[in-house]
Amino acid sequence: MNILIKKNNIKKSKDKFYMQKAIQLAKKGKYTTDPNPNVGCIIVLKDKIVGIGWHKKSGENHAEVNAINMAGKLSKNATAYISLEPCNYFGKTPPCCDLIIKSGIKRVVIAILDPNPKVSGKSIEYLKKSGIQVEIGILSQKAKNINKGFFKRMLTGIPWIQIKMAISIDGKIAMKNGESKWITEKKSIQNVHKHRALSSAILSTSNTILKDNSKFTARYQTKNKKYIQPIRIIIDSKNRIQLHHKIIQENKSEVWLIRLFKDKIFWPKHVKQIILPNNINQINLHILLKFLGNKKINTLWIECGSNLFSNMLRMHLIDELILYIAPKMLGNKTISLYHDINNIYLNQAEQFIFKSIKKIGSDIKIILQPKYQYKKIS
Amino acid sequence: MNILIKKNNIKKSKDKFYMQKAIQLAKKGKYTTDPNPNVGCIIVLKDKIVGIGWHKKSGENHAEVNAINMAGKLSKNATAYISLEPCNYFGKTPPCCDLIIKSGIKRVVIAILDPNPKVSGKSIEYLKKSGIQVEIGILSQKAKNINKGFFKRMLTGIPWIQIKMAISIDGKIAMKNGESKWITEKKSIQNVHKHRALSSAILSTSNTILKDNSKFTARYQTKNKKYIQPIRIIIDSKNRIQLHHKIIQENKSEVWLIRLFKDKIFWPKHVKQIILPNNINQINLHILLKFLGNKKINTLWIECGSNLFSNMLRMHLIDELILYIAPKMLGNKTISLYHDINNIYLNQAEQFIFKSIKKIGSDIKIILQPKYQYKKIS
Repeated sequence: MNILIKKNNIKKSKDKFYMQKAIQLAKKGKYTTDPNPNVGCIIVLKDKIVGIGWHKKSGENHAEVNAINMAGKLSKNATAYISLEPCNYFGKTPPCCDLIIKSGIKRVVIAILDPNPKVSGKSIEYLKKSGIQVEIGILSQKAKNINKGFFKRMLTGIPWIQIKMAISIDGKIAMKNGESKWITEKKSIQNVHKHRALSSAILSTSNTILKDNSKFTARYQTKNKKYIQPIRIIIDSKNRIQLHHKIIQENKSEVWLIRLFKDKIFWPKHVKQIILPNNINQINLHILLKFLGNKKINTLWIECGSNLFSNMLRMHLIDELILYIAPKMLGNKTISLYHDINNIYLNQAEQFIFKSIKKIGSDIKIILQPKYQYKKIS
Repeated sequence: MNILIKKNNIKKSKDKFYMQKAIQLAKKGKYTTDPNPNVGCIIVLKDKIVGIGWHKKSGENHAEVNAINMAGKLSKNATAYISLEPCNYFGKTPPCCDLIIKSGIKRVVIAILDPNPKVSGKSIEYLKKSGIQVEIGILSQKAKNINKGFFKRMLTGIPWIQIKMAISIDGKIAMKNGESKWITEKKSIQNVHKHRALSSAILSTSNTILKDNSKFTARYQTKNKKYIQPIRIIIDSKNRIQLHHKIIQENKSEVWLIRLFKDKIFWPKHVKQIILPNNINQINLHILLKFLGNKKINTLWIECGSNLFSNMLRMHLIDELILYIAPKMLGNKTISLYHDINNIYLNQAEQFIFKSIKKIGSDIKIILQPKYQYKKIS
């Protein structure tokens, strides 16, 4: 009996070991798989890794295909570790399940089910019916964390939302005259470009464009890091964005102008006007986020002023708040980070959890997770 | 030649090693030596530690005395490592230099000179004249750092000033109605009590007393940690502190009411009225700090509202700012940390350096050092 427990424990720790490797592999696709999830696969035969694969880009081989191709005949009787339930349908590529069965793989260990309710669990059933041993749930939280956007979009229909704000230690985002360039230092700004490169889209407002004339492209430089330029989405309810703005002049990625009515300007090809229903002369954020979910935006990176930030926070739409804090005090006659409606008591304050704290150059970067529960948008 | 360099390097690294130990020993006195500095001493004979000593309390043995007593006859021809220049005058105890000479110690290594301009360097001369080899400057910065208050007071005449503020992530200290209990959590508050226990005195204002009715004693609980209760100093320019306030009811340490004129109340023995010159109906902070320096207050721990904090910052009087930040957003209609006079441009903002960042329970604690240069108060 004791020997059996021991054997089982060894098996479990081996499974964790290889799954950890599969998840590490999956991460290699983090700049490029969008809108697909990051997936990694390891094939192990008699305690030896005989195949590895990861998904690189939509339309290209899935992780399982790359790993099985590498393993070749050694797939027979092997165990496959996959960080996400394999597909069982024809997408841009043929279903992975059939290849797994054909390869002779004996056992499949899967970290987590596909979050898409339409397919979730079906591949497991299919593999099992074909006589393959299937195990599920090894390092599932880790596997979910590398695809936060994909999971949230599949489960709720809206993207994973990160909002970035640069503040002083006394919580100010700009001087009274609007001067905010630059509260934080170069290294913080470089770090922002990394986040942009990791995101499906950047959301901002025409207010910010009119103030800073930003291009909102990702300008992230590291060797061998290719990334998809994020789609640039601007809330522009009063049609104030013009042809001369830098974001329009720069055609590295699409620009979506979120508006209440079209204008007659002849916009360049990379610019689209998206017309959403009029909500008392404002863009309805719920409708916008649903629209972005439908457009397969997994991760939305928001850079904006205190208005949009405060609206998003009050509406409990933020998944993660990233604060770059500069070691400066601006004083009380400047612009505050958060404009609440009218909180009177301390227990009405919005609550967060400090997820990480890090020094970046002379600044600090803090990641906060709101404590509120996500409410499904109807 | 190479052998000589090598020998010298070995000697240097040995000196650092023992001095590090002497500084560690010195720290044992950090809760109790006030107003004296923390000092540690190690006596080493033929690479063996034969005596250790540290200064515990004003009026009791100096570190050197304890170490030499322990070493006994083994002091002869030994090296003494002392974290601060030994005394050469009769204070509450006889001069250490004479004991060192008498003990037969051959070599004395000193981390840093006594900052007191009247005695600094004199002991070194005295020891040298008696034929003792003297070296100075090993780990001097570290030795200075364990006595920041003593050094600053000796060099400038005013205490080392730390100011503590509890804020939300959006830099607010209280709701509009003044509610601030408790922005931060229990563990942060316990940490504050540790700082109180480490300080010579706590400074606050009658405003804070009238709002919170604090006792301002140190209530820091760890085993075997005895500490001197800090003197409690309250700026009370309008004589608003009354007999019924908790700070008066509690007699664990002296209370100094800093006032512009005396009242006729019969105060308990532990309460003193300190009358400072009238400065347009306000207490002049420079005069107050000079007064505290004269009273041998090495380290001043300030807990107050945004008025005193803002005045202290604008006057560039703060040596260290300790922020306890709670993961909450209070909104823009609440009370801000820093009230500046009228900064217009970003480059007028007060600048700091992040010295340390630490999680405390669900809060974070940040230590900031202002970038301004200390200006000597005339």
